[in-house]
Amino acid sequence: EGGEEVGSQGLDKYLEQHVSELACDAVLVSDTGMAGINRPSLCVALRGLCYVELFVNGPTSDLHSGSYGGVVENPAIALARLISQLKDDSGKVLIPGFYDDVRTLGAADRAALQTAAKSDSDLLRSTGAPRLFGEPGFTPTERLGARPTLDVNGIYGGFTGEGAKTVIPAQAAAKISMRLVADQEPKKIGDLFERYVNQIAPDTVKVRVERLHGGHPYLARTDGPAIGAAKQALQEAFDSEPLLEREGGSIPIVVTLAQALKVDVVLMGFGYPDEHSHAPNEHLPLSHFDRGMVAAARFFEIAGSSLAAR
Amino acid sequence: EGGEEVGSQGLDKYLEQHVSELACDAVLVSDTGMAGINRPSLCVALRGLCYVELFVNGPTSDLHSGSYGGVVENPAIALARLISQLKDDSGKVLIPGFYDDVRTLGAADRAALQTAAKSDSDLLRSTGAPRLFGEPGFTPTERLGARPTLDVNGIYGGFTGEGAKTVIPAQAAAKISMRLVADQEPKKIGDLFERYVNQIAPDTVKVRVERLHGGHPYLARTDGPAIGAAKQALQEAFDSEPLLEREGGSIPIVVTLAQALKVDVVLMGFGYPDEHSHAPNEHLPLSHFDRGMVAAARFFEIAGSSLAAR
Repeated sequence: EGGEEVGSQGLDKYLEQHVSELACDAVLVSDTGMAGINRPSLCVALRGLCYVELFVNGPTSDLHSGSYGGVVENPAIALARLISQLKDDSGKVLIPGFYDDVRTLGAADRAALQTAAKSDSDLLRSTGAPRLFGEPGFTPTERLGARPTLDVNGIYGGFTGEGAKTVIPAQAAAKISMRLVADQEPKKIGDLFERYVNQIAPDTVKVRVERLHGGHPYLARTDGPAIGAAKQALQEAFDSEPLLEREGGSIPIVVTLAQALKVDVVLMGFGYPDEHSHAPNEHLPLSHFDRGMVAAARFFEIAGSSLAAR
Repeated sequence: EGGEEVGSQGLDKYLEQHVSELACDAVLVSDTGMAGINRPSLCVALRGLCYVELFVNGPTSDLHSGSYGGVVENPAIALARLISQLKDDSGKVLIPGFYDDVRTLGAADRAALQTAAKSDSDLLRSTGAPRLFGEPGFTPTERLGARPTLDVNGIYGGFTGEGAKTVIPAQAAAKISMRLVADQEPKKIGDLFERYVNQIAPDTVKVRVERLHGGHPYLARTDGPAIGAAKQALQEAFDSEPLLEREGGSIPIVVTLAQALKVDVVLMGFGYPDEHSHAPNEHLPLSHFDRGMVAAARFFEIAGSSLAAR
């Protein structure tokens, strides 16, 4: 397709125009990783995204904090106060309605996620965070794969150079993204965010929300013939039963393909956790290359007969 | 002195070494403004300053918010939560002990401040803020001249460029300054800030406070002979009784001179509110120049005889 790293701007239109030429029984996407060396995995869920920028404006221009400190609201403080009301101190999102469309995790889902669970110590080692943190009542793997969350991706305002400058900033802003899970809708979540922020914003500042980016979450049918074919293909190629993993990140093209072509999208990838993805020295175990080719070939053979037999 | 605009680094040491040569009855500083054209003022108070930078660190490096969103605390959110606990939503500072050393405003102080009060509409016009805001129980002029406050002067962390990047920042930081009034001590206020922030910080992040800058507040004796001489000099030169104003900003040299030389420092300046200080087209009414020379000359004559007569 060629446009993945620049947002696939032309893809939706292309799919719409060529839907009959692209008609198929299933789609295979190899853009995910395996749980470890020679531990095959199928990715069965991806989170969606609602990315906004929140602007808080107060005075017309930056003010001298000596001459005006104490008589006007400080937009950076107002912004901090708004952000502090987006999540509670346990990590639960406070936007009314945010969790309404989230699919409940059943016992079987939880058991499946547990099979592919990352250990706390692995997560601590790979992040370097002082401790893990997130929504109560869910394991870290459940929080990553099956629960939505909200993060501040960037925050800025006022004087950010070296040293001390005593200004009251005219504006402060934050880039805020929400990772979504089935069946949350990015547009609806953006609306809920905007309504809530406008509702809690004080009248000492002006607040504006800009929508930057959105993507739907994906949750695969795990009992269909396409996934069945992928499972069998991986089992044969790697001599090991594949894990069913839910990925915390987003691959918007997956939902686009599934919706346009009305088929299952199988996410069978061969990367591995420490591959340095998109970074210097990106690498891949050669066995993933060799066995991956076998798995892909077997997938087409197996799916070809099982899907054709429908 | 020549070092004012670069922090007067050598001044303390110079004063210490030359205190006997500099012995005098009073010091006259002309670095302040008048209330309006031909409305003479004496500045009788300056706020001090305690300027810190607050760093909040979480993961070792920026993380992909898809891969890790929901399992680690976001340092920008933790910072926002800390900032939201520094002041309540009425503008009162919440740091325990912050107001302990603030001199109470008596009825006479309030009446004097009222005489030189700025109007709400002037403040709104000059700031462009949607409305005025600050500590309850005090007028805007009282809050500027006689009450301490806290502002975020700058805030930064994560991705702050154009567009959307989905990172959990490793660090977020804020430049925070507190304007102080008599008899608050910048060192003590810095200690109280640091203790409070460490006490309320969650264990999901690491917090560090760096002290950037400090300056003592100044409150003049308004019944001494030096101020008396200045009042009379201004009255004669401008045919108008001078207002006694408290300035919200800081001129650290004033306290340095008062302490080193053990004399009253008179702040008799001739700027005016819309002078575009430090900006293009900085200007001064010529009458301030002419009458200011007369006022300064008369100050030395009057103070010379009244202080010598002690």
